[in-house]
Amino acid sequence: MPKQVDHDERREAIARALWRVVEQRGVAHLTLREVAKEAGISHGALQHYFASREAMLSFAMDLAWEQKTLRVHRGFQALGDQPHPRDVLRVMLTEMLPLHTDARAASRISAAYVLEALHNENIHARARDDIAQGRVVFEQLIRQAIADGHISPTRDPVAETNLLLALTGFTTLLELDVVEPQDALTAIDQHLGRLFTTNDLGTGHEGAAVDDA
Amino acid sequence: MPKQVDHDERREAIARALWRVVEQRGVAHLTLREVAKEAGISHGALQHYFASREAMLSFAMDLAWEQKTLRVHRGFQALGDQPHPRDVLRVMLTEMLPLHTDARAASRISAAYVLEALHNENIHARARDDIAQGRVVFEQLIRQAIADGHISPTRDPVAETNLLLALTGFTTLLELDVVEPQDALTAIDQHLGRLFTTNDLGTGHEGAAVDDA
Repeated sequence: MPKQVDHDERREAIARALWRVVEQRGVAHLTLREVAKEAGISHGALQHYFASREAMLSFAMDLAWEQKTLRVHRGFQALGDQPHPRDVLRVMLTEMLPLHTDARAASRISAAYVLEALHNENIHARARDDIAQGRVVFEQLIRQAIADGHISPTRDPVAETNLLLALTGFTTLLELDVVEPQDALTAIDQHLGRLFTTNDLGTGHEGAAVDDA
Repeated sequence: MPKQVDHDERREAIARALWRVVEQRGVAHLTLREVAKEAGISHGALQHYFASREAMLSFAMDLAWEQKTLRVHRGFQALGDQPHPRDVLRVMLTEMLPLHTDARAASRISAAYVLEALHNENIHARARDDIAQGRVVFEQLIRQAIADGHISPTRDPVAETNLLLALTGFTTLLELDVVEPQDALTAIDQHLGRLFTTNDLGTGHEGAAVDDA
């Protein structure tokens, strides 16, 4: 189906143009007109692919989500065959933060998408579903880690999941250079280290390890 | 100086119109033209008060910041004469989240401001300074709480400050209805409860105490 492939490639090229507009000029410039100009095609040709700004933004968000998933899977591979659940959560969480160029572009698209969601019911529903699905994966991992004795059973899996997801608030601190990437990672490692402190289950030596992470 | 007062009142009325545009229609509609229309004045009259979109947005941000400060001070008054530092930090943190209408408007202006900062050096510098100053206050409170024995001296004040500020990531989870306000508060209280767990001051059981909060 070469035709379909061409179509998909064109859509992806347009999404990348959209990405550059957001990355370089900001969400205020995110219009069909500016994206067509950046992609080097006519406004009409762009509308052939995306009927509206909303459709265009949703596709860019899909692309950002896909690429984040790829980065997370690469991160998992680097952890080897039997990764510690703390390291799995660390990869999932840190790939949501603008700690390197690819993740930064995705993070900005995502921020634009969330702002758009506040005034657009369709986008709100989709953004909510995407994040709620991601949240379920985090909570399952935490529940499993509790069941496997990696996290104390006294921890509340719902609250711990919410706290981990809330740490995506590092995005703003990193984007504004209020916190350095290394300091964000240090703080996240201390948080995860404490979450995975199980010496109240009897070993008695993991408390000290918390800050070595 | 009645003239100055009129001028200030006019600026505030314009800022409120701007606020409504962001709140109801979104940051994509935040232009001098739309704000003039919402404020019921001409584009030229608006430019008498704000020469640019940037100046207008900065003023709205000042107003949001001022109102947040007022809410925080009201929160402090409710804590009485000798508030526990945990409760002080709780007020400061929760007033940054969109947990009620006023805070939601401020939070949206702030999100718009941060997105704008990514592509505007002046706004970036100001947003950075504002947040960095707030960060200093958080860190001072945490250092004092460690000195006063409310927080274990084994805690790293820099990392703990960064973690607390990062919890503003609840903003997105609340705005998208992924997490309910009560669940956000529960998670924040568990985090603060553990931070202020001090029975590890010599007992040698910090792991076990962590989860009692």
